[in-house]
Amino acid sequence: MEYYPPSLVRLIKHLSRLPGVGKKTATRLALHILRSRHEEARGLSQSILEVKDKVRLCSKCFGLADKDPCALCENPKRDHTIVCVVEQPSDLVALEKSGAFKGLYHVLHGAISPMNGIGPDDLKIKELVTRIAEDGIQELVIATNTNVEGESTASYLSQVLKPYPVTLTRIASGVPMGSDLKYIDEVTIKRALERRQDFNSG
Amino acid sequence: MEYYPPSLVRLIKHLSRLPGVGKKTATRLALHILRSRHEEARGLSQSILEVKDKVRLCSKCFGLADKDPCALCENPKRDHTIVCVVEQPSDLVALEKSGAFKGLYHVLHGAISPMNGIGPDDLKIKELVTRIAEDGIQELVIATNTNVEGESTASYLSQVLKPYPVTLTRIASGVPMGSDLKYIDEVTIKRALERRQDFNSG
Repeated sequence: MEYYPPSLVRLIKHLSRLPGVGKKTATRLALHILRSRHEEARGLSQSILEVKDKVRLCSKCFGLADKDPCALCENPKRDHTIVCVVEQPSDLVALEKSGAFKGLYHVLHGAISPMNGIGPDDLKIKELVTRIAEDGIQELVIATNTNVEGESTASYLSQVLKPYPVTLTRIASGVPMGSDLKYIDEVTIKRALERRQDFNSG
Repeated sequence: MEYYPPSLVRLIKHLSRLPGVGKKTATRLALHILRSRHEEARGLSQSILEVKDKVRLCSKCFGLADKDPCALCENPKRDHTIVCVVEQPSDLVALEKSGAFKGLYHVLHGAISPMNGIGPDDLKIKELVTRIAEDGIQELVIATNTNVEGESTASYLSQVLKPYPVTLTRIASGVPMGSDLKYIDEVTIKRALERRQDFNSG
């Protein structure tokens, strides 16, 4: 690598700090950028600065946004009485892609994880409580992940929010659609059996 | 993806144009850049522009360089009478890493490939001929790849350069060091047998 010109070596070093990008991939990417058209490289360079400059957290839902409040929070077509609580902005996107949710969101920016030193105060929980008090929210759908951290965050929230006049629900867990039972883990099967539903309940 | 803020979507689009980077990886990288420190992102952005701005081809060897002629061509400690001919700058780097070559280089920037419409005129062959005439080169080591394109480029060069007062050699092909014969392809085995050498010849 030290055999490339210094400016190319610098680009390789910067690229190799990206997650999942080793020295070989970084070198390949750097050589590609070097060979690409000037506008293309300038566009990439520009968009990196722009993202750092423009994207911030919506002060209401703490989702990623170019403006504050974000387009979702300001959309009058969304149901402002129901709020879905997620761990990360990427979870919000996953839910939006499903097209099944028409309310607003609240991004916690993490999950309670004593192992990693993340407690309730490190998440946007106080801000959620404030929203409940101020915004006339009627239902909170807790959509944290279904792993250990997500589940304990959900149960923590259910405790903390008990005093508030809001319906708390949790996204259903069970066997994913389109899957083969023999490949599903025991915990999921157990959960799916425990939470079995009447055929006509849906 | 359209659920992210516009500037983030733009960055994802730019990143996904890089080779081997799909939408998922691009999203992961973009979110990482968004979360990274400002100086880090600025450094990456800057180094992309810098590489496009500063790196050019050395007018002698056509290797990548920040200045012209490049550090290699200007190094008085290198043997200026022997030149190694390679296809790409990355091949030059591979040879330099071996530490086994002390001469200069000539980068062709490709190999003859009628399938891809690349003929001799698309490579830096005229420039190589000029160098032979002008620079007092005594030996040319043809180190194009040992695949079809590289081999035919090597044999083309050996034809074209015949009239010139320069020794032409080709890098040895055979079984790579440290390998297990049972995993080596037939063509390589055949070549290694044909080119077998006396024990005392090295």
